[in-house]
Amino acid sequence: MSENNAKHVNVLDHGYVRLNDVMGSDLTVANSARVSYAKASAELTDRDRRLIAFLAREGHTSPFRHAIAQFEIHAPLMVARQWWKYNVGSAHQEGTGDSLDAWNESSRRYVTEEPVFYVPGADEWRSKPENSKQGSGANLPGYEGEFYTRRLFEIIDECEEMYENAMSIGIAPEQARLFLPAYGMYVRWYWTASLQSVCHFLAQRLAEDSQAEIQAYAKAILTLIEPHFPVAVGELMPKGER
Amino acid sequence: MSENNAKHVNVLDHGYVRLNDVMGSDLTVANSARVSYAKASAELTDRDRRLIAFLAREGHTSPFRHAIAQFEIHAPLMVARQWWKYNVGSAHQEGTGDSLDAWNESSRRYVTEEPVFYVPGADEWRSKPENSKQGSGANLPGYEGEFYTRRLFEIIDECEEMYENAMSIGIAPEQARLFLPAYGMYVRWYWTASLQSVCHFLAQRLAEDSQAEIQAYAKAILTLIEPHFPVAVGELMPKGER
Amino acid sequence: MSENNAKHVNVLDHGYVRLNDVMGSDLTVANSARVSYAKASAELTDRDRRLIAFLAREGHTSPFRHAIAQFEIHAPLMVARQWWKYNVGSAHQEGTGDSLDAWNESSRRYVTEEPVFYVPGADEWRSKPENSKQGSGANLPGYEGEFYTRRLFEIIDECEEMYENAMSIGIAPEQARLFLPAYGMYVRWYWTASLQSVCHFLAQRLAEDSQAEIQAYAKAILTLIEPHFPVAVGELMPKGER
Amino acid sequence: MSENNAKHVNVLDHGYVRLNDVMGSDLTVANSARVSYAKASAELTDRDRRLIAFLAREGHTSPFRHAIAQFEIHAPLMVARQWWKYNVGSAHQEGTGDSLDAWNESSRRYVTEEPVFYVPGADEWRSKPENSKQGSGANLPGYEGEFYTRRLFEIIDECEEMYENAMSIGIAPEQARLFLPAYGMYVRWYWTASLQSVCHFLAQRLAEDSQAEIQAYAKAILTLIEPHFPVAVGELMPKGER
Repeated sequence: MSENNAKHVNVLDHGYVRLNDVMGSDLTVANSARVSYAKASAELTDRDRRLIAFLAREGHTSPFRHAIAQFEIHAPLMVARQWWKYNVGSAHQEGTGDSLDAWNESSRRYVTEEPVFYVPGADEWRSKPENSKQGSGANLPGYEGEFYTRRLFEIIDECEEMYENAMSIGIAPEQARLFLPAYGMYVRWYWTASLQSVCHFLAQRLAEDSQAEIQAYAKAILTLIEPHFPVAVGELMPKGER
Repeated sequence: MSENNAKHVNVLDHGYVRLNDVMGSDLTVANSARVSYAKASAELTDRDRRLIAFLAREGHTSPFRHAIAQFEIHAPLMVARQWWKYNVGSAHQEGTGDSLDAWNESSRRYVTEEPVFYVPGADEWRSKPENSKQGSGANLPGYEGEFYTRRLFEIIDECEEMYENAMSIGIAPEQARLFLPAYGMYVRWYWTASLQSVCHFLAQRLAEDSQAEIQAYAKAILTLIEPHFPVAVGELMPKGER
Repeated sequence: MSENNAKHVNVLDHGYVRLNDVMGSDLTVANSARVSYAKASAELTDRDRRLIAFLAREGHTSPFRHAIAQFEIHAPLMVARQWWKYNVGSAHQEGTGDSLDAWNESSRRYVTEEPVFYVPGADEWRSKPENSKQGSGANLPGYEGEFYTRRLFEIIDECEEMYENAMSIGIAPEQARLFLPAYGMYVRWYWTASLQSVCHFLAQRLAEDSQAEIQAYAKAILTLIEPHFPVAVGELMPKGER
Repeated sequence: MSENNAKHVNVLDHGYVRLNDVMGSDLTVANSARVSYAKASAELTDRDRRLIAFLAREGHTSPFRHAIAQFEIHAPLMVARQWWKYNVGSAHQEGTGDSLDAWNESSRRYVTEEPVFYVPGADEWRSKPENSKQGSGANLPGYEGEFYTRRLFEIIDECEEMYENAMSIGIAPEQARLFLPAYGMYVRWYWTASLQSVCHFLAQRLAEDSQAEIQAYAKAILTLIEPHFPVAVGELMPKGER
C-alpha cells in the first residue's frame, strides 16, 4: 500500500470522504480478464489498455469487480440513505448508530458522539426546478436564504435540547432520537465496493439532476479513485459524460 | 393467488404491513430441493415435511430462496433504515421519496403526501436498559412520558411549519426536508424477499434486544407469512426460539 | 396462478424450459415504482404503460426487481455453466447433482437418474467463425457432420460403460463421474429470478455471437415470459434489438 | 502489500491456489465495526481482539465483509462448479473459457491452452460411503484402483484425440468440447471475496462429508488466508470445529 493511498477530501460543512484502502490497479482488471498464470507484469502495456477499453465498451463488467476500494464517509443522513439504497452488492458498515452499544464490552455507558448537523449557508439554498423534475434550480438570493439558515440552527438547537433532556431522564436513546431533525444529521460509515460498483455510483450521482449534496460526495469519490485506476475510470466514466 | 393472501396488519400509531403477493408454498421448498420433473404433487407429504426439516436443520438454505413474498410497509424512517441495512439480497422500492418526481410525466407539480410522524404515547416511552446493552428497559411512568409526548407533537408542528414555509417560498423539497424530525417520519416501501431472507430478518428482529418498534413490525411479518409456509417457517423459526 | 402459467418449451434433443411460477404482472412494476397505497387497479392504464417505458428508458431498474419468475430447466452442463456465471442475484437450485444424496432420509441407495447427453445431429455441427470472434460460423455439410455425431455417440457409450463399471465396484459417484464427457450431460435446475435479471440474461444470450445452444434456451425463456409481462418485456427488450 | 502475500499452494495432481492480493487485516474488522475516525492504530489491541470475538460469536458478520482477498485457482471443473454455486456475493472471473476469444484484439487464432485433466492415482480412488450419505468411504486397494487410473488416462487420450480432430476440420471449439471428459478438466479463475465469504466457504468445504477434492482446496485457502487474519479466522473458524 503506497503512501498516497490515504487521502481525504472535505465535503459540505462538516463532511469528508477518506480513501482507507485500495486493492489492485488497472493491471488487476486486465489480469483478471485474462486469468493467465504468471503473466502478471509490473507495467501496464498498450495491449492492457486496449483490453480495458474493450471490456468497458462491450459491457463485460465482471473484471472490474476484482479491484476494490474502501472509503470512510461522513455525510448527512439524507445522503447516506441514497447511497445505500442504490448500491446493491457493496458492503456498508455504519458505526455511529443503533448497534454499536452492543459490542461495547465494558460496563461503562456508551458515550454517543455529539450529533453534528448539515446546515446550508445563506447563499446555498436552492430553488425548486422550473420543470418539476427532481433536482434543484438556481440558488435563492442570500438575503432570503439567511432566514432559513438561522431558523434551521434554531430548530436544531431546540431539538437537541429536547433530545438531551430525554436522555438525561433516562429515555432510551433509540426513542430519544425521535426529537432530532435527522435528515441533516451526519453519520459515518465504511463503504467497501468493487471498481464496478464505485463507477456505477458515480454514473448515477454525478448526473446533473442528482441532489447537489450527493453530487459533492460523488466528486470527492472520483478525485480519490481516479489516480488508482486511471485507465479503467477513464473508460468507464468518459470525461465527456461526467 | 387465493383471497386470503391480501392481508393487512396495523403497527404502531400510523403504520402497517400488507402482504401484496406470495409465490410458492412449503411444496416449493421441497420441490426445489429435489428438482425432479413431473413430481409436483398438490399435497405436502410427510416425506416433504421431513425434507424441509432436514434442510433447515443442516443449513441447506438455498431451497428457501425459491419461495418469495412481497410486502408493502409503512413505517418510521428509523425502522426503515434498520430494515434495509441488514437485508442484503432482497429488493426494496421506496416510493415516497427523492426520485418519484422524476417519473411524473405530467408538468403538474408533484403533490407530496402530507408527512406523518410516529409519536409514542405517554405510557410508551422506554427507559435505557440497566446493563448498557442496546434495546430498552422498563417503560417510564405515564406522568413522565406525557411531557415528552406533548413536546414531540409541538416540535413536529414547529418543524413542519418551517418545512412548509420553505416549500412555499420555492426552496427545493430535497433541502426543505432538513427541517423535519425525520427519524419518526413514516415512509412507505415495497419489500420483495425470499423466504430465507424473510426468516433471516425475523430471527434478527424478533430478538429481545432488538428495538421495540422494529420488533412490532417483525411480529406483523410473521403473522402474515406463517400461514403461507407453515412447515418451513416452523422449522426455520422454532416457536421456542421466537 | 392462472392455468396458462404452466408452460413448457422443448429445446435441443432432450432439453426443455418450464415456467413453474410467476409473481406479479406489468402492474407490479408500475405499482412498485409508485408505492402508493390502495391504488392497485386491476387494469393497466396508459399512464402505467408510459411509466414502465420511462423506467426502462432511464435505467431505473429497481421496480423490475419486484416481479419474479421461476423456471425449471433441463440443459447440457456447458449451457448451465454460462447461465449460472452471468446471473448474479438470482437463485439457482440444481437437483441432480452432488448433494441430493444428503437429504435422502431413507437408507436406500440413491438412484441416480440415467445420464442423458446432448449430441448434435449430422447437420448441426457448426464451423469456427472466420474472424476469430467467439460464436460459430456456417454449419458443416451433413456428410462431414455424420462422422462426428457417430463418434460422439460411441465415445459417450464407452465413457458411460466405464462410469457404470466404476460404480458397480463401489467407487464413490463423485469420483466415478470423472469418466463422463460432462459438457454435454444434461442437468436439471430451478431458476428463480426477477424480471430485471431475466431480461438481463435475455439481452446477453439472445445476442448473435452467443453460443447457439444457449440462444435456443434464451428464446424459450422469452416465449414463456413475454405473455406475463408484455409491456415490461417489450420496453426492456425492444423487438428491433432482439 | 508485504512480500509474503504472494503465496502458492499446490493441490491435487496439477492444481494450485495462489493468493494474489489482500486488502486489510484483523484491524480492518475491528475498525469497520467501530467506524470511529482517526482511531486507526497500527497494532491490534486486546480490546480489538475481544471485539472481533464478540462479532463472530454474535453473528454480526458485516464487519468481516470489509476485508477482502483475491485468489487465483486452478482446479478440476467439478470443483469449480461447487465453488461457484455456493458462493453468492463474491466475484469469479474465469479466463480459459468460452469468452476469452472475444477480447483478443488481434486477428490471430486464439490458441487454447492444452487441456489438463485430473486423474486420481491408483491408491486415490475412494469407495462409496456405507451409509449412503454424500462424501466417500475408505480408499480402494491400489491393485483395484490401478485399473481405473489406467482406463481414465486411456479415455482422456481418446476423447482428446477426437476433440483435436474436430478442431482440425474447423468445428467451433464451443461444440468440439463435447468430446471432452470435462468433470476432471482443469479450469483457472480469479476469486475475489470478503473474509466473511471466504470463511463461509471454508465452513462448508472443510466439513468431513464434503468431496475430498474440494476439501483439499479449502485447506489450501485456509493456509493462505489465516496468516493475514489470524484473530478473525480463529474466531470464525475455531480450530476444534475444523
